[in-house]
Amino acid sequence: RSHPPVAAMLALPFLPFSLFLGSLGSLCVAFVTLWCHHWRGGFSWDGTTTTFNWHPVLMVTGMVVTYGAAALVYRSPPAWRGPKFPWKVLHGSLALVALGLTVLGLLAVFSFHNTQGTPNLYSLHSWLGLLTVLLFSCQWVFGFSSFLLPWAPTWLRGFYKPIHVFFGSLILLLAVASCLSGINEKLFFSLKNGTMQYKFLPPEALFANTLGLLILLFGVLVVGALARPSWKRPEGDCPETQQ
Amino acid sequence: RSHPPVAAMLALPFLPFSLFLGSLGSLCVAFVTLWCHHWRGGFSWDGTTTTFNWHPVLMVTGMVVTYGAAALVYRSPPAWRGPKFPWKVLHGSLALVALGLTVLGLLAVFSFHNTQGTPNLYSLHSWLGLLTVLLFSCQWVFGFSSFLLPWAPTWLRGFYKPIHVFFGSLILLLAVASCLSGINEKLFFSLKNGTMQYKFLPPEALFANTLGLLILLFGVLVVGALARPSWKRPEGDCPETQQ
Repeated sequence: RSHPPVAAMLALPFLPFSLFLGSLGSLCVAFVTLWCHHWRGGFSWDGTTTTFNWHPVLMVTGMVVTYGAAALVYRSPPAWRGPKFPWKVLHGSLALVALGLTVLGLLAVFSFHNTQGTPNLYSLHSWLGLLTVLLFSCQWVFGFSSFLLPWAPTWLRGFYKPIHVFFGSLILLLAVASCLSGINEKLFFSLKNGTMQYKFLPPEALFANTLGLLILLFGVLVVGALARPSWKRPEGDCPETQQ
Repeated sequence: RSHPPVAAMLALPFLPFSLFLGSLGSLCVAFVTLWCHHWRGGFSWDGTTTTFNWHPVLMVTGMVVTYGAAALVYRSPPAWRGPKFPWKVLHGSLALVALGLTVLGLLAVFSFHNTQGTPNLYSLHSWLGLLTVLLFSCQWVFGFSSFLLPWAPTWLRGFYKPIHVFFGSLILLLAVASCLSGINEKLFFSLKNGTMQYKFLPPEALFANTLGLLILLFGVLVVGALARPSWKRPEGDCPETQQ
């Protein structure tokens, strides 16, 4: 009775999980790209709606999928062995790529609004998204200053680490919430006429709603993997404060 | 250097925190009620938009504020002493009240849609919200069956507890994400004319966006409090499997 079959079945190794998660992340990027390409007119950088289309693609790719990959670096079994420093550099670099894609995604929507004469940052989606990006920027700067700079004091690392870990999961879920509110908003904007109204669930609406669920599943699986005790890097032989 | 002032400053006792959180939760309920009363025409149960107005009020009150209170029951210092069973009953009862309010909140929006001839469950907000409520229902039934029924086997309790705890925080954040996408959607629906368009941030939009941020802050503080190791009930002297 102490080793029930259901617990054994859930003792999933990290590698097949991360392959599945990688496929799911790729599927999210493919879905958002296909949505903007097939139904929303494709991509440009001239301030029209096709400039706006970079916004969802870059946000999903940067703030969700690349961010998720960065968050899971320490969970990969190779990262459990040897010095931690190279993995810290990989974690910080992936997060920086995510931040770069996110900033480009913001530029796309600001450029679109400014060309069209639409005000910026009025919707709750934009407030939530901006808050998420600001938190992520702080997370990156604090993480870099505390864990990568060799002169950061030991007490600061020990004090800040659980906060960094908590905000790491929180920011990903805020990014997912921002994506979902953004997809919802965009569909109400775009699907307004005749039988193609959002409320009649035309193919585009079904497709983009499904994209929303895939993004949600990706975010929840990343946060779940981060919370799983057996996948955490054992810190005993290699203290967190060690370079 | 081992006891920096910043760590000592953050050693917050639970009581003042929960008083602040209670005020914040009440403020969320007051804001959503005032929004629907002052700008959206008040309340009724006749299938018109004033029936719809119960939807945001009941969802914020049930799925966020009451749910948050239920989640934090075991963090209150009185719950640390004596037998756990009465606190389990309180936890389950508050969760049941939250679920009841949530179901009424769903009835309000379905009744509105059906009276108006609007399809149900087409938007991503509705998919996300329904998923959240379904997960919450499963969480309640599984929690009741595993922790309150005296004949639930010990291995099941030990196995399911971390899953219940993880989904407890996740469902609250999904509820917050549902509220935010719902407020965003409602403001695009309601604020369409002249200078009162959402994009010009009229007073109603500023007020409801602020409501969104208050709900987010409430959810994040509850999840943060749940994650704080020093506020967790010590299980050593009273095993989790004990009635």
